[in-house]
Amino acid sequence: MSSTISDQLQNLGVTTFRPSNRRGDQMREVRITRNFTKHAEGSVLVEFGDTKVICTASVERGVPRFLRGSGSGWVTAEYGMLPRATGSRNGREAARGQQGGRTVEIQRLIGRSLRACMDLKKLGENTITIDCDVIQADGGTRTASITGAYVALRDAVSFLKKDKHGAMKGDPIKYGLAAISVGVYKGEPVLDLDYAEDSAAETDMNVIMTDKGGFVEVQGTAEGEPYSQEELNAMLELAKKGIAELCELQEKVLA
Amino acid sequence: MSSTISDQLQNLGVTTFRPSNRRGDQMREVRITRNFTKHAEGSVLVEFGDTKVICTASVERGVPRFLRGSGSGWVTAEYGMLPRATGSRNGREAARGQQGGRTVEIQRLIGRSLRACMDLKKLGENTITIDCDVIQADGGTRTASITGAYVALRDAVSFLKKDKHGAMKGDPIKYGLAAISVGVYKGEPVLDLDYAEDSAAETDMNVIMTDKGGFVEVQGTAEGEPYSQEELNAMLELAKKGIAELCELQEKVLA
Amino acid sequence: MSSTISDQLQNLGVTTFRPSNRRGDQMREVRITRNFTKHAEGSVLVEFGDTKVICTASVERGVPRFLRGSGSGWVTAEYGMLPRATGSRNGREAARGQQGGRTVEIQRLIGRSLRACMDLKKLGENTITIDCDVIQADGGTRTASITGAYVALRDAVSFLKKDKHGAMKGDPIKYGLAAISVGVYKGEPVLDLDYAEDSAAETDMNVIMTDKGGFVEVQGTAEGEPYSQEELNAMLELAKKGIAELCELQEKVLA
Amino acid sequence: MSSTISDQLQNLGVTTFRPSNRRGDQMREVRITRNFTKHAEGSVLVEFGDTKVICTASVERGVPRFLRGSGSGWVTAEYGMLPRATGSRNGREAARGQQGGRTVEIQRLIGRSLRACMDLKKLGENTITIDCDVIQADGGTRTASITGAYVALRDAVSFLKKDKHGAMKGDPIKYGLAAISVGVYKGEPVLDLDYAEDSAAETDMNVIMTDKGGFVEVQGTAEGEPYSQEELNAMLELAKKGIAELCELQEKVLA
Amino acid sequence: MSSTISDQLQNLGVTTFRPSNRRGDQMREVRITRNFTKHAEGSVLVEFGDTKVICTASVERGVPRFLRGSGSGWVTAEYGMLPRATGSRNGREAARGQQGGRTVEIQRLIGRSLRACMDLKKLGENTITIDCDVIQADGGTRTASITGAYVALRDAVSFLKKDKHGAMKGDPIKYGLAAISVGVYKGEPVLDLDYAEDSAAETDMNVIMTDKGGFVEVQGTAEGEPYSQEELNAMLELAKKGIAELCELQEKVLA
Amino acid sequence: MSSTISDQLQNLGVTTFRPSNRRGDQMREVRITRNFTKHAEGSVLVEFGDTKVICTASVERGVPRFLRGSGSGWVTAEYGMLPRATGSRNGREAARGQQGGRTVEIQRLIGRSLRACMDLKKLGENTITIDCDVIQADGGTRTASITGAYVALRDAVSFLKKDKHGAMKGDPIKYGLAAISVGVYKGEPVLDLDYAEDSAAETDMNVIMTDKGGFVEVQGTAEGEPYSQEELNAMLELAKKGIAELCELQEKVLA
Repeated sequence: MSSTISDQLQNLGVTTFRPSNRRGDQMREVRITRNFTKHAEGSVLVEFGDTKVICTASVERGVPRFLRGSGSGWVTAEYGMLPRATGSRNGREAARGQQGGRTVEIQRLIGRSLRACMDLKKLGENTITIDCDVIQADGGTRTASITGAYVALRDAVSFLKKDKHGAMKGDPIKYGLAAISVGVYKGEPVLDLDYAEDSAAETDMNVIMTDKGGFVEVQGTAEGEPYSQEELNAMLELAKKGIAELCELQEKVLA
Repeated sequence: MSSTISDQLQNLGVTTFRPSNRRGDQMREVRITRNFTKHAEGSVLVEFGDTKVICTASVERGVPRFLRGSGSGWVTAEYGMLPRATGSRNGREAARGQQGGRTVEIQRLIGRSLRACMDLKKLGENTITIDCDVIQADGGTRTASITGAYVALRDAVSFLKKDKHGAMKGDPIKYGLAAISVGVYKGEPVLDLDYAEDSAAETDMNVIMTDKGGFVEVQGTAEGEPYSQEELNAMLELAKKGIAELCELQEKVLA
Repeated sequence: MSSTISDQLQNLGVTTFRPSNRRGDQMREVRITRNFTKHAEGSVLVEFGDTKVICTASVERGVPRFLRGSGSGWVTAEYGMLPRATGSRNGREAARGQQGGRTVEIQRLIGRSLRACMDLKKLGENTITIDCDVIQADGGTRTASITGAYVALRDAVSFLKKDKHGAMKGDPIKYGLAAISVGVYKGEPVLDLDYAEDSAAETDMNVIMTDKGGFVEVQGTAEGEPYSQEELNAMLELAKKGIAELCELQEKVLA
Repeated sequence: MSSTISDQLQNLGVTTFRPSNRRGDQMREVRITRNFTKHAEGSVLVEFGDTKVICTASVERGVPRFLRGSGSGWVTAEYGMLPRATGSRNGREAARGQQGGRTVEIQRLIGRSLRACMDLKKLGENTITIDCDVIQADGGTRTASITGAYVALRDAVSFLKKDKHGAMKGDPIKYGLAAISVGVYKGEPVLDLDYAEDSAAETDMNVIMTDKGGFVEVQGTAEGEPYSQEELNAMLELAKKGIAELCELQEKVLA
Repeated sequence: MSSTISDQLQNLGVTTFRPSNRRGDQMREVRITRNFTKHAEGSVLVEFGDTKVICTASVERGVPRFLRGSGSGWVTAEYGMLPRATGSRNGREAARGQQGGRTVEIQRLIGRSLRACMDLKKLGENTITIDCDVIQADGGTRTASITGAYVALRDAVSFLKKDKHGAMKGDPIKYGLAAISVGVYKGEPVLDLDYAEDSAAETDMNVIMTDKGGFVEVQGTAEGEPYSQEELNAMLELAKKGIAELCELQEKVLA
Repeated sequence: MSSTISDQLQNLGVTTFRPSNRRGDQMREVRITRNFTKHAEGSVLVEFGDTKVICTASVERGVPRFLRGSGSGWVTAEYGMLPRATGSRNGREAARGQQGGRTVEIQRLIGRSLRACMDLKKLGENTITIDCDVIQADGGTRTASITGAYVALRDAVSFLKKDKHGAMKGDPIKYGLAAISVGVYKGEPVLDLDYAEDSAAETDMNVIMTDKGGFVEVQGTAEGEPYSQEELNAMLELAKKGIAELCELQEKVLA
């Protein structure tokens, strides 16, 4: 992996191969702002560089029909982008009358990942709905969404802990959770792709992990040529580094 | 109108009849932030107190079919609310598969009002699409949307002015434009209702006016009892005062 | 207001400025036919000149979920136009799979206005659904709809009064209710615009009032240039005259 | 067939077995009113007793994509019922977001039948859209629709004949066309079932024929028990009688 | 009817007028395979020559709302075609967001026909849903569907008979049931039209009958010219022959 | 990895830990039948044990709008399940009016994977649409779909090669392609999960690879607990073994 070389070059003022001039293993600046809006039980603005997502967590008593009486809670997620979050305007999904395939795919991923870090039995018969709405997109919206959603989820769980009438049976959070994209760009593995890289990458991989280093979801797609086991391994190494940084930031923000 | 009395009382530290302790003719603090997001030709965050709306203006070459070849441009608007912009979560319209009646009503009003302050012939065969997305609601989202949308529209027009290939034929902006809600609350006319007032008001009126004092749209609805000509007149007087303040702020921000 | 002059001219056989040769303050011939179809609890054909609308009122036991157990009733409305009610055929909304924005806007207005003239508590847990279906359009379909719907509503209430098992707790009708359009056409305020006027008017205002002179809804839109306070006042004066005539006719028909 | 007996009994003042006291082979009173509304090229109110349908024919230049350049025209039909055309209110299809199966089935039948009596080549590249909207239902709405639609179609063709710019190449009408329902009710074949009979009939058959006695469509459904060849034959005989009367009335009205 | 001549010619090695070289009264080879898939209570592959349809019958406890508490069961059907069951690909109905008119028409016919051969009271409060999915189409898919669906229905009823907790009250099957298409092709009546004949036939008739010779549904459509009573009679004779053969095959397969 | 032990046990007649009694690295019997239906340019029945999918490839001239004039072709996929392909009936997506999230996710995966093994430039401006319709499901429907779809794609490409008017510019197939599921079941890595395993697995991973050993897509989801790097590696090893066997079978079938 050439990141060491890139690093040395960067320290010497030499520009790297990345459009953003980051080292291969360098994330964008990540900011997490809690209590971003006032109504939701959890409300977070998460920023991965120019990618900005509002993540809210809404608590409701009761669960969907298939869980009623089970004593178990539920966590689900929805995802959206403001029409002009991107370089050219995308038609509003509400006006077109349905969510696109990409939207459906992402919101299923977010919900699945959040449930994987929880003990839904301990949540009791409560439902937490996560809304991730992208207000500005610059690559990595799904991984930023998951990383921010986890913080909103934690705030919603804290809200339920204080609620005497809530049905919680202990702390339902089993793990910390964060997500990051990695890829192969110009033949080199890179961490946290922005839009300029993402649209030109040979391989794009989203990795969702717990703070204990367990994999929750790995989705790696060859955009151009198929990728090798070596590339896969290098990407996973970068992902582990990024996840560790994100989990540390999340805990700092939640402290 | 009892606002003078309210005013005197307020100056004496006496609380007024309004939940927010404002005088009857007092607006909430209004903030307009240009260039809020980076992709759109016009992008504004408008805040009427706790009501916060992102208004973007997107420029596209060409016009809808019914205007092709006419030499005339088009301005249209879409409106949405993040699911948890409100006190309890509203189902996402994209997921439900259609925009609700209230949404449709509001976005038609926004589009109609913006077109009324423009000379579409001078715009040339360009389309400007306004997106108003409420990220936090506390009453008056439609009037905040129009007030912010006008600023985003001005930025989009400035963008077109600098564009050599644009088809503009002079400045298409004929008037300044702002909108404000007025109502009758506890028997008194009030300016710029917040949610606490709006949900309890006897009458709710939205007024959209130009900076020259012309009416673009007046929509007054009796929520409880029918209202009288005197109440109508009192509300319109308050609206004129509010519109003047908003137009002044818009020009200051645009300067 | 030049209506006096128009009036004198008309009496002298001089044509007025209106395409229909009416005076500025003159309504079209209005006809209200009760029991137009046989199944509905209230069924009215209302005609404002060539505008013809079938208004039915359907009574159902029970109320929507949000009112169950409240003891309160509900009144709602739906609006439609036969595809060839207009000069050129409009696609059938049922075939296109959704109601257009204009339809939604109008049916919300009708429902809101009818509820404003009622005491829903006294209606008991009954639902009255008003259907307004335009079979021929020549301007003013929404005001004709409201005016006819009120008569159908009264017949439906009479039906409930005779019903021993109904849950009514006294007469739920608080006010008479009618609606009329006014506008500024060729610089002059006019009453009850037909299509020829409506499509060329500078300003179009729909006014819904009670028989006691209270305003239920005022919606005034600048179609061309913004309008002034003087024009607003003149239009409201015309509206009051029209509403008084309509309320008188309604009571005569209901007697 | 016992209709002769019924006839004799009826003449003697004895009530027949039919709820309407008609003879087995007796149709309801049929009325056809041309020019019922003013905008459409053909506009007919057709009444089979208490069943009332507005049938309009709308002419448009051009044809659907699959016929462009073929020189051939197109005739299509849409069908709807006002929500309260029936004894209890049916949800509005436009509001529910789609046409029901029964509606789709009927409008396909109407369109197919009308095309069967025409030479679409002679129509030239024009489209005639038939709208059949039931304002009051009492059985037999589909057969009344076809019978009225044919008259509206004839008026639309006459309109095209007078149009110099139309693309007609001779008279596209090949046959007269009418439709009638027959059935087996209380074991006896009956003509033109009303709702009381239709809902209790053992067999329900819709027959569409030309004025020359050719079958265009026969649809016979066993509602209770399967029916025999003899019953089928008896129903077809009744249908022929009814069709002949309807064709005669159509021509009289069109004269 | 010239089938005798065709028959003699065929025996002499002379080709007939039918593209498939069948006699006028000759069906395609029909195959019915039970237990085609493993999950459904009834699962049949039915083949009429190259037309192949998977018919499954699914048993569920309970009935739709309108039958709850009535003690009566329900049978309903849905129909679909794989997108490439036909010569050119048809858009997938699930992706387009609705079933087409032809699909709706066919599935209503299937459900209605199956209910006609049953005593739903004896079925008890169970619902049997029939799915007919065409995997290869060559004409006659609706008649093949009904013929196969009947066999799947019988297997589902057998499943219920063995179920102690089922609510059956005796055998709900009243009749055997089969369906066949007949038509007029090149001026001659023909049995069991394949696609080549169907697309060129003057008349197309679908006949659904019981094994006792009763008519359940007759649907005859003039595709080109209207048809005569003689043609109708000739087609029905062919249909009776075909139905008898199909009912015999069904019972053999079920034995 | 304990598969060696399992293997030895199995050889000794000892049952393994898998419900199907397969070794951990043993696939179900896989069958691929070409020319399964007659209309499509490629038509394959693929069976992974009891999972059965019909995969058709349909060739159309031309490409979607976003590729017109680019000289490049397009490959896309749609996926569906017959309602009773599963143990209990799933509502038909066409009847519900939209494809579910799982369906959308799968069909996007199929299309993306097939495009990854092709040179779309060489395909010329042709579109190949793959339809994967599951007629019986027992786990692994998406991987069976991709494996079968590749064979149907190859047949469609062969069809285009023979077509003089096709716009192909050389062989567009760059790689062989197959897909297999792997997982962790009862703590052990297993190959090709059937439904009994899939519904109880701790981790479920779908791996799509070329015949040259390159990764096209890896999607690994923790169903229960997060998984480790060691488990990931073990699963990928199993996948490579399975893919090699599948690619060999595909080539044998295509020979």
